Amino acid sequence: MSPVRVAVDAMGGDRGPDEVVAGALAAAGDGIVPILYGDASLAAHGLEHVVTTQVIAMDEKPAEAVRAKPESSLVAACRSIGAGTADAVVSAGNTGAMLAAGLLEIRRLEGVMRPAIAVPILARDGPSVLLDCGANADARPEHLLQFAHMGAIFAEEILGVPSPEVRLLSIGEEPEKGNQLTLEAHKLLAESTLNFAGNTESRNLLVKAADVVVTDGFTGNVALKALEGTVLTVLQGLRAEITKTALGKLGGALIRPATRRLLTRLDPETYGGAYLLGLRGLAVIAHGNSSRTAIANAIRLAARGVEHDVCGRLSARLPERAESAV
Amino acid sequence: MSPVRVAVDAMGGDRGPDEVVAGALAAAGDGIVPILYGDASLAAHGLEHVVTTQVIAMDEKPAEAVRAKPESSLVAACRSIGAGTADAVVSAGNTGAMLAAGLLEIRRLEGVMRPAIAVPILARDGPSVLLDCGANADARPEHLLQFAHMGAIFAEEILGVPSPEVRLLSIGEEPEKGNQLTLEAHKLLAESTLNFAGNTESRNLLVKAADVVVTDGFTGNVALKALEGTVLTVLQGLRAEITKTALGKLGGALIRPATRRLLTRLDPETYGGAYLLGLRGLAVIAHGNSSRTAIANAIRLAARGVEHDVCGRLSARLPERAESAV
Repeated sequence: MSPVRVAVDAMGGDRGPDEVVAGALAAAGDGIVPILYGDASLAAHGLEHVVTTQVIAMDEKPAEAVRAKPESSLVAACRSIGAGTADAVVSAGNTGAMLAAGLLEIRRLEGVMRPAIAVPILARDGPSVLLDCGANADARPEHLLQFAHMGAIFAEEILGVPSPEVRLLSIGEEPEKGNQLTLEAHKLLAESTLNFAGNTESRNLLVKAADVVVTDGFTGNVALKALEGTVLTVLQGLRAEITKTALGKLGGALIRPATRRLLTRLDPETYGGAYLLGLRGLAVIAHGNSSRTAIANAIRLAARGVEHDVCGRLSARLPERAESAV
Repeated sequence: MSPVRVAVDAMGGDRGPDEVVAGALAAAGDGIVPILYGDASLAAHGLEHVVTTQVIAMDEKPAEAVRAKPESSLVAACRSIGAGTADAVVSAGNTGAMLAAGLLEIRRLEGVMRPAIAVPILARDGPSVLLDCGANADARPEHLLQFAHMGAIFAEEILGVPSPEVRLLSIGEEPEKGNQLTLEAHKLLAESTLNFAGNTESRNLLVKAADVVVTDGFTGNVALKALEGTVLTVLQGLRAEITKTALGKLGGALIRPATRRLLTRLDPETYGGAYLLGLRGLAVIAHGNSSRTAIANAIRLAARGVEHDVCGRLSARLPERAESAV
């Protein structure tokens, strides 16, 4: 197997280029060739390097920024997929800009209405895919149906789950609980060929709500950030309470291996990023505040997606699910 | 001060009447007189008791159930507020039915478009109020503005915060991040007389996002259940990891006081319930799966609301905020 070439937006992310480069260096080898997209200062690291002259900031308006800055690291990295000089792209930069650049430079798979951000969740009882986690702040019921199909193909092909169970994120398990969007989406999902098991609630996400949990991008983003923030706050709170007493500190030292195992599972850095599903090429969006570890894992996630041919399988299998493109 | 009379829906909740009665017994005294609403079997407990002949189940359609069962424990308990035989009502039953019965039997305060479920969150850096947590699955921007005003009055009067800071729950701190609803609500909030500090993200909720965090009922419910589920899953996961080794078990024993302190703060049972704001009388909605401890705390929360005259203050102060009823 030839190595996977991953275009890395070195200028994206809150922690600056050094952190991204360190992540790329950590991921290099083992069949992965990172290619840095960023300014001339990045030449010293011995990695492949494409010099770019513009940078899209985290707070720029996505569509305008992508139009105005074709030579930015983010847009140029996405363009490398369309041009065939890289197999996948990773950015911890402006998520909206990544979506806009993906649509412009990588383009949608035929029949795809909207790409969706799919986040793998390492839940207690097994892996789960939550989508959309933020590509579409407003979505229609038919979008949710298509997200569900993309998530199901993803779960089958990448997680190896035959006939994956799909659930709709709502505010009660009963079909009549929800808002206008989920009530209508529920009907579409129930009538579909999917293995639809009904609604689920956000409290189940970390236990394992289903193989695929489908929602609009606003709700998915709120749920995901609530999960991440709560894990962090609970573990920090525990540390603060433990270190209040000497006995607590001793106890804390004894349970450190246990907390480390738990953190490894629950920490978003462990998977590092999310797939942007529905494009003709593989794109991974990493957290804005990604550490080098998170960046390295996001690059590995991208390479795994290429090895499993995520885009090819979506492209081949979405049309057979004709209902997904109503 | 005369004791606060709290009507308790003894037939509501997943754990059955015995658990609710145990909670009422625990809360009785200290200026609180619980009045049980439920079937004849409840007479043996020495508490005041109003016999009711119907029960609304958790999965019944709210509006229909309330219309069809005027003699249910839930509806009768709400009616006692309108009739003046109780000062507040508490139910762990069907939330939608509680809302419908509240609108019918307690009625809206003048000028209130929609009541909202306000949940006190004991965040790391201080208390915070999140609303709406589920009364309105679909809401309009002007509803969110009014929720913000109700939340702000609540924070001023009950939490004692002068000029409470209000934030809008969204998927990014920048004003242009969000869905159609939050984009429009952001504008209304920014133009209002409120101390509006912009958007916040769900990851901040447990740290303390603001004195008042405003959102629609669907999003608020998803965020709240994500918080609660994650706290539970993390602490259970920690216990499972700790008990894998003998040293871990010893460590776990040493940190038990610390975990207990943390749980007390993060456990939803600690506050027990949520206020249904915007009605002419005080209503508290407890979790469906409330334990006796949670029920007792919900009854105490209701009594505190009566002592602070939450409804009277909302009624007196909402009109001065004329913009809240546009």
